[in-house]
Amino acid sequence: MAEEAAQEQPSPTAPRKVRCIVKLGGAAITNKGELESINEESLQSACAQLRQAMSESKGDGAPEKVLGMDWSKRHGDPADPAVDAEWISGMAGLGLDTNFIVVHGAGSFGHFQASRSGVHKGGLHSTLVKAGFVATRISVTSLNQEIVRALAREGIPSVGMSPFACGWSTSQRKIASANASQIIQSLHTGFVPVLHGDAVLDELLDCTILSGDVIIRHLAQLLSPKYVVFLTDVHGVYDRPPTDPNAVLLKEIEVDDKGSWSIVKPALLQGNNKGVEISVAAHDTTGGMETKILEAAMIARLGIDVYITKAGTEHSLRALKRDVSSDSEDWLGTIIRSSK
Amino acid sequence: MAEEAAQEQPSPTAPRKVRCIVKLGGAAITNKGELESINEESLQSACAQLRQAMSESKGDGAPEKVLGMDWSKRHGDPADPAVDAEWISGMAGLGLDTNFIVVHGAGSFGHFQASRSGVHKGGLHSTLVKAGFVATRISVTSLNQEIVRALAREGIPSVGMSPFACGWSTSQRKIASANASQIIQSLHTGFVPVLHGDAVLDELLDCTILSGDVIIRHLAQLLSPKYVVFLTDVHGVYDRPPTDPNAVLLKEIEVDDKGSWSIVKPALLQGNNKGVEISVAAHDTTGGMETKILEAAMIARLGIDVYITKAGTEHSLRALKRDVSSDSEDWLGTIIRSSK
Repeated sequence: MAEEAAQEQPSPTAPRKVRCIVKLGGAAITNKGELESINEESLQSACAQLRQAMSESKGDGAPEKVLGMDWSKRHGDPADPAVDAEWISGMAGLGLDTNFIVVHGAGSFGHFQASRSGVHKGGLHSTLVKAGFVATRISVTSLNQEIVRALAREGIPSVGMSPFACGWSTSQRKIASANASQIIQSLHTGFVPVLHGDAVLDELLDCTILSGDVIIRHLAQLLSPKYVVFLTDVHGVYDRPPTDPNAVLLKEIEVDDKGSWSIVKPALLQGNNKGVEISVAAHDTTGGMETKILEAAMIARLGIDVYITKAGTEHSLRALKRDVSSDSEDWLGTIIRSSK
Repeated sequence: MAEEAAQEQPSPTAPRKVRCIVKLGGAAITNKGELESINEESLQSACAQLRQAMSESKGDGAPEKVLGMDWSKRHGDPADPAVDAEWISGMAGLGLDTNFIVVHGAGSFGHFQASRSGVHKGGLHSTLVKAGFVATRISVTSLNQEIVRALAREGIPSVGMSPFACGWSTSQRKIASANASQIIQSLHTGFVPVLHGDAVLDELLDCTILSGDVIIRHLAQLLSPKYVVFLTDVHGVYDRPPTDPNAVLLKEIEVDDKGSWSIVKPALLQGNNKGVEISVAAHDTTGGMETKILEAAMIARLGIDVYITKAGTEHSLRALKRDVSSDSEDWLGTIIRSSK
């Protein structure tokens, strides 16, 4: 099945429009350069902000008691978890608009295994690729498990869904089959699906890596969320590597029907969509900036606003709540939207 | 969709017949009575025996070097994993018949979360059930992750597949939808799918627990394996609780077309299929003995031999290799087969 055919698959009855698809960037939630190391503080902060964005109570009073949903033993803690079943039963509801989907990248998980074996290049007849496929999936699914746990600890009813296990596959690296019915079903029953970049089967190459960014674009096409947020480790898209002291943050980018983009803000860069070397995060492992901008532009082209911003800041909280407009001078991040 | 309809679903092209479906019983691979504790020794031994059963080399010489496929950091080990890519690339192949499916139970994982919340009874409008659903899945998928890792360390190309994520669902606790196409696809490409008992959505109850035993029966019906092995923590099915010093191991049970069963061996119990209180493992968490015998009998009725035996023994290795016949006086275990 070609990518076009997959995109045309009828969207199963979706009465509730998905509010937001959130990308937790690998660079934001893991420690780069340290194999399989989670940035606990950044992850916890992202999960807490997601909860705030979902919260239906507008009160700015004392924080409510959170119904933690990870009842597993914490590593190294001999005590059994305490679950106050009576209190939980007495709750009227979660008080959350859970109509979100979370997709995360791999960061320092999976990259080592994939690059050592060349899983992205395919060829399962090779023992190295086959072993690398298994090793990559073990690494990325262990990160998925930790992210589901972190969300659950913040009271978000998260359910892990691994693209490979869900039967998602590609043909020459483009999505060939990606049934979203279980994702929709989960949303309908009030759960937050948590997907991730994964090693998948490929019709022509045997196997490859399906990145979180491609998954988000596909889900955005299928489910038409109101907006999409990419949380990363820099403030947004810059006109050159963000480490460059002269780097300028691109605050607003417009995408036309054909997918061409142009810088709207800052005004001094208007029309300058050729000469700038656009940069999001220097250490992105799958695809890098070009893929990311391209995927974001393809989402914006559908009329869905895309916000790219730094995780764990006031700016990310505002993006998750969609408390941002083109006039928000005090918001740091990049808005990518359709020119229509 | 009713259970019957689900069972009639056309089996996607399956040129290679599945050799064996193996149940790793929760009682065998976890420590009962200790929350979320894996019986590492028993699990490692079961994985090593599975590898031996898959091995295509008949030599009894020095053990071959195992191509470990878990390249993740071990907990508490600061060193990065060593991967000898050159050696792996030079291998002609894995030398394994990987045409196996592994399904595991939950044991001391998931049970606490499910029973505290009543997930099996359904009702997702209840905050407690919703939270328990999330907590149960976190617990059982973390066990799945550890079992996939243990298999991978023994060089078995294992891939975790979570029934909920695969879109499996029930209707009044009976399987309503259980697409096996990704399982078949994984087998065809040389991977060993590893499934588990899981919390799933239910058309009538909202949600429930789908046990590993029911999954095995369903897969056996769909995929017609040559044989099925249940590894547990006792030698097989007894005529009364195996802790009773007078308990007699039932060595052979026949099942007729209608699903009625009768004891063939030992001869002294022949015809005695009413008065005996059949018992497999005292601490089974989902369904208990009755479910287990019923599921095994339904598999045997299809003409598929079922072996129930104790994990980590010479008897389990022989069962996995199918090196057992009705005349094997020195084999300890229960064979359940069709009377035809």
